Amino acid sequence: MGPSPRPSTALGTNGSFGFFLKAFTILALLLPTPALADGLIDNINGVTLDKDGKIVRFSAIQITSDGKVSKLLDRKDKRPERPDFKVDGKGQTLMSGMIDSHGHVMAVGFQALVLDLSPAKSLAEAQKMIADYAAANPNRSWILGGGWNQESWGLGRFPTAADIDAVVKDRPVWMIRVDGHAGWANGKAMALAGVNAKTVSPMGGRIEKTGLLPNGVFVDAAAELVQKMVPEPQPRERDLALAKAQQILLSNGVTAVADMGTTLDDWQAFRRAGDNDALKLRIFAYAAGVDNMVKIAGPGPTPWLYDDKLRMGGVKLLSDGALGSRGAWLKQPYADAPRERGIGMLSDSQLSNLMSRAALDGFQVAVHAIGDQANLQLLNSIDELSGTYKGDRRWRVEHAQIVDPKDLPRFGEHGTIASMQPVHQTSDRTMAEARLGPARLAGAYAWQSMLKAGAKLAFGSDAPVESADPFAGIATAFTREDASGQPFGGWMPQERVSREQALAGFTIWGAYAAFAEDRIGSLMPGMRADFILIDTDPLMATPSEIRAIKVKETWVGGRPVFVRK
Amino acid sequence: MGPSPRPSTALGTNGSFGFFLKAFTILALLLPTPALADGLIDNINGVTLDKDGKIVRFSAIQITSDGKVSKLLDRKDKRPERPDFKVDGKGQTLMSGMIDSHGHVMAVGFQALVLDLSPAKSLAEAQKMIADYAAANPNRSWILGGGWNQESWGLGRFPTAADIDAVVKDRPVWMIRVDGHAGWANGKAMALAGVNAKTVSPMGGRIEKTGLLPNGVFVDAAAELVQKMVPEPQPRERDLALAKAQQILLSNGVTAVADMGTTLDDWQAFRRAGDNDALKLRIFAYAAGVDNMVKIAGPGPTPWLYDDKLRMGGVKLLSDGALGSRGAWLKQPYADAPRERGIGMLSDSQLSNLMSRAALDGFQVAVHAIGDQANLQLLNSIDELSGTYKGDRRWRVEHAQIVDPKDLPRFGEHGTIASMQPVHQTSDRTMAEARLGPARLAGAYAWQSMLKAGAKLAFGSDAPVESADPFAGIATAFTREDASGQPFGGWMPQERVSREQALAGFTIWGAYAAFAEDRIGSLMPGMRADFILIDTDPLMATPSEIRAIKVKETWVGGRPVFVRK
Repeated sequence: MGPSPRPSTALGTNGSFGFFLKAFTILALLLPTPALADGLIDNINGVTLDKDGKIVRFSAIQITSDGKVSKLLDRKDKRPERPDFKVDGKGQTLMSGMIDSHGHVMAVGFQALVLDLSPAKSLAEAQKMIADYAAANPNRSWILGGGWNQESWGLGRFPTAADIDAVVKDRPVWMIRVDGHAGWANGKAMALAGVNAKTVSPMGGRIEKTGLLPNGVFVDAAAELVQKMVPEPQPRERDLALAKAQQILLSNGVTAVADMGTTLDDWQAFRRAGDNDALKLRIFAYAAGVDNMVKIAGPGPTPWLYDDKLRMGGVKLLSDGALGSRGAWLKQPYADAPRERGIGMLSDSQLSNLMSRAALDGFQVAVHAIGDQANLQLLNSIDELSGTYKGDRRWRVEHAQIVDPKDLPRFGEHGTIASMQPVHQTSDRTMAEARLGPARLAGAYAWQSMLKAGAKLAFGSDAPVESADPFAGIATAFTREDASGQPFGGWMPQERVSREQALAGFTIWGAYAAFAEDRIGSLMPGMRADFILIDTDPLMATPSEIRAIKVKETWVGGRPVFVRK
Repeated sequence: MGPSPRPSTALGTNGSFGFFLKAFTILALLLPTPALADGLIDNINGVTLDKDGKIVRFSAIQITSDGKVSKLLDRKDKRPERPDFKVDGKGQTLMSGMIDSHGHVMAVGFQALVLDLSPAKSLAEAQKMIADYAAANPNRSWILGGGWNQESWGLGRFPTAADIDAVVKDRPVWMIRVDGHAGWANGKAMALAGVNAKTVSPMGGRIEKTGLLPNGVFVDAAAELVQKMVPEPQPRERDLALAKAQQILLSNGVTAVADMGTTLDDWQAFRRAGDNDALKLRIFAYAAGVDNMVKIAGPGPTPWLYDDKLRMGGVKLLSDGALGSRGAWLKQPYADAPRERGIGMLSDSQLSNLMSRAALDGFQVAVHAIGDQANLQLLNSIDELSGTYKGDRRWRVEHAQIVDPKDLPRFGEHGTIASMQPVHQTSDRTMAEARLGPARLAGAYAWQSMLKAGAKLAFGSDAPVESADPFAGIATAFTREDASGQPFGGWMPQERVSREQALAGFTIWGAYAAFAEDRIGSLMPGMRADFILIDTDPLMATPSEIRAIKVKETWVGGRPVFVRK
């Protein structure tokens, strides 16, 4: 258990001290280095990157009462004699908190709050999980969840509404299939949706029936018949989701996250947390489109709020879809679908106009671009706008997954940032090979090529699409092997980054990508004291040891915000 | 000019002090009364009400570095020797800042930002004003304004679009007539609205025409044809309007206002001001309906934000319309319209349900009720809900203008607050007599009867419907005479309140009405140092002297926020 540091005004005086000692103690506050008011964490294997990415090691860290690093101490350096608080690190590794440069904060929380049926090995197990969850959540008006797969149940059929009605019939239940392509409703949910024998399956969808009657499963487009009845979450539920998301991210060692696509409702939840001193995680909010940007931040980026915990500094736009669903916009047809090239969501001028609208008011622009055509379009827009919007703009390309090798050098122009998610590479590898064929993979997930081109790199998770665990990201980044070590030696190993670069991608480079490098990402003196305590040094350990890291404590702004029990 | 106090951490030390003096100075901070860090305003005619409404007089006020009153000093009391700052009040009257318990902050600002044509005595003068305003506001996409009256121009006709086109034709111009019942557009505005020879006058409206062509004036419902084209204000314009509103209110001596009907856009402007340290006025926000309440504050009232400058603690609902337009909901027909009883906006159960929705989550409920039937309906709802929602609820009746005398005693139940606007009484007097006839005025604007019934009273302005000047309200409250002293001796003089009660209505009672009596409304030690400096003591002066009061300085939280040049 980490101690709770005393309030920031505590001077450490008490009635037994003499007058002069008291006077001396207080005077110390006026000295340039207020050593006696700092907290100390000693006996640690401290490691951080300085702003140039050089490894700095230390064995103790001194923290000011307002939560900044005042000093890093070597083994031989004198410790302060009367620290405001003192923690024995017991030899653990202490390193900068992780920055996730691409996550979806509220979605992380909402996903964690609904029922996960993926562990169910039979219909009976799924039924019991639904019943237990409903009993444990008496105030939820809808019982929501997902992850079911009747194939693994040996059922030989889809489940039915009656299967759920047998355990929960007073409230609507709605469970999404593991692949996201079907939903399973109970009778109450179907009744609310007004689905009955007369309901026709919509184009692109199928209502499963027993005789003439819908029996509970709605495939593809038909799922919308029920989905549209699920009520929008109320503020109280949003607050719960945010609390859950913070807990998940902080327990994974993530102390700051770029929230990619903040809606007004998301923002209001962030602010409620901030107003009530319940915002522990740092959130760099990128508005979900220009409308949200204007509604939330108004005429320009917000200031840093709540001691640098929250800021809306930019906007997130979408240039194309994703590779799995063949929505990524490619220069040439899909290898496995020769008549498709994916979906470009915006014309060249639409994209430039939206980017311009944001840049005009000083917002940073982050654009989702996955396919090589989408990346080219975006690089063209960046090039075009850089003539008008001078200065330090840090245009962000989110994902930058499939890039034509001849376009790669352009990531080195105009201070462009490639915001990439290492774990996507291992998750998508086989699928990407199918979609593109082997000849077009040279610029796929090309982290090292990005660096060589002079691009700024930032790493993230895309949670909840992937796990929020940054150590999986780090291990992947320098191996390009998946959790089981496949493929041995790494997939396209020339695109691996070094361990130090992997760490930089989740720390100093992530801070830079959010205009936050003057406050977080490193533990050099003057920076916010955001750090984690772990029992493995990721610069020394094997990839599988790194993947096994469990964060023991997470501190933000010099205060413990997560302590593993 | 008032001095700018030093930052709150200044200790007043400098290099020339010796060690022991320094130590002593610093030690003083640890004492229970940090006398030396306070600011002092001396040589004043200080007057405030204590929490029981008793007048307290003082000749100096001591203010803590965090902007609270630490001490009120009599002429003979010892002054602190080394105050953090010191101001000579030059014998002026210093009193608590005024609390306006019913205003519309953003509307005050927007109204002040558009062109006021009411001073124009001829079409030529109006044209010149429009031309000058357009030239002075090159970035406004629409030139908006109001207050014109062709009757006073001796024109013998309505003005036309061509009259404006002669001075401004590049941008749309749209001017509302003084009575709000017609609008005057230029050619550009008509073109944007798509109004042409084929446009038919809508039901309840009339398009003025020259031959077949619309010529620029749109009467009643026809005005909407152009009005709907006026763009929603952008955040930058909202910020301008808020700055203007603050300037107007603070210069009138208003340091806190209950904003009656805060929309999400309003709230975002308030927050931007708060985030950027530009919120100087205290705003008690009452959401414009339950939807805004949930979107803005979420599951319950916000905390006090920005050092008690902003809080959303309640919701504003509407039970009826206004008297002038015969929208006020009466028990018996209008005297001057025997087939009308006004408009009840909500059924009994709708009103109770909305109030319940807010009260359930701990929000305070403020309901606009003008006619005697609306007031009765609301009193019934309060009575009904008080059984369920116990505790200190402070149900607010906004306006409470026309009350059946037999319902008056019910304002004394359940801690009900009558939030009334004295100046409405003088503005509406003749109209109220016409609408109701003399027999039904016994419970009209019945301030003293409210007090006698045991109701809590709070006074406001309804700005911008009336002037934001609280001294007009105070003078009216204890005279029931208008600015010209009519009617002599006061209209229904038995409903006058005392001077002290008038002052309480704009100070301590206003604070109570917003659950803020523990922080503002009085200058007793521990309260926020919100006060004004004026050259007239309103407890001694004649009504006309009070109406002539010009506030010299306004301080909020111990800092000057308005100083008259």
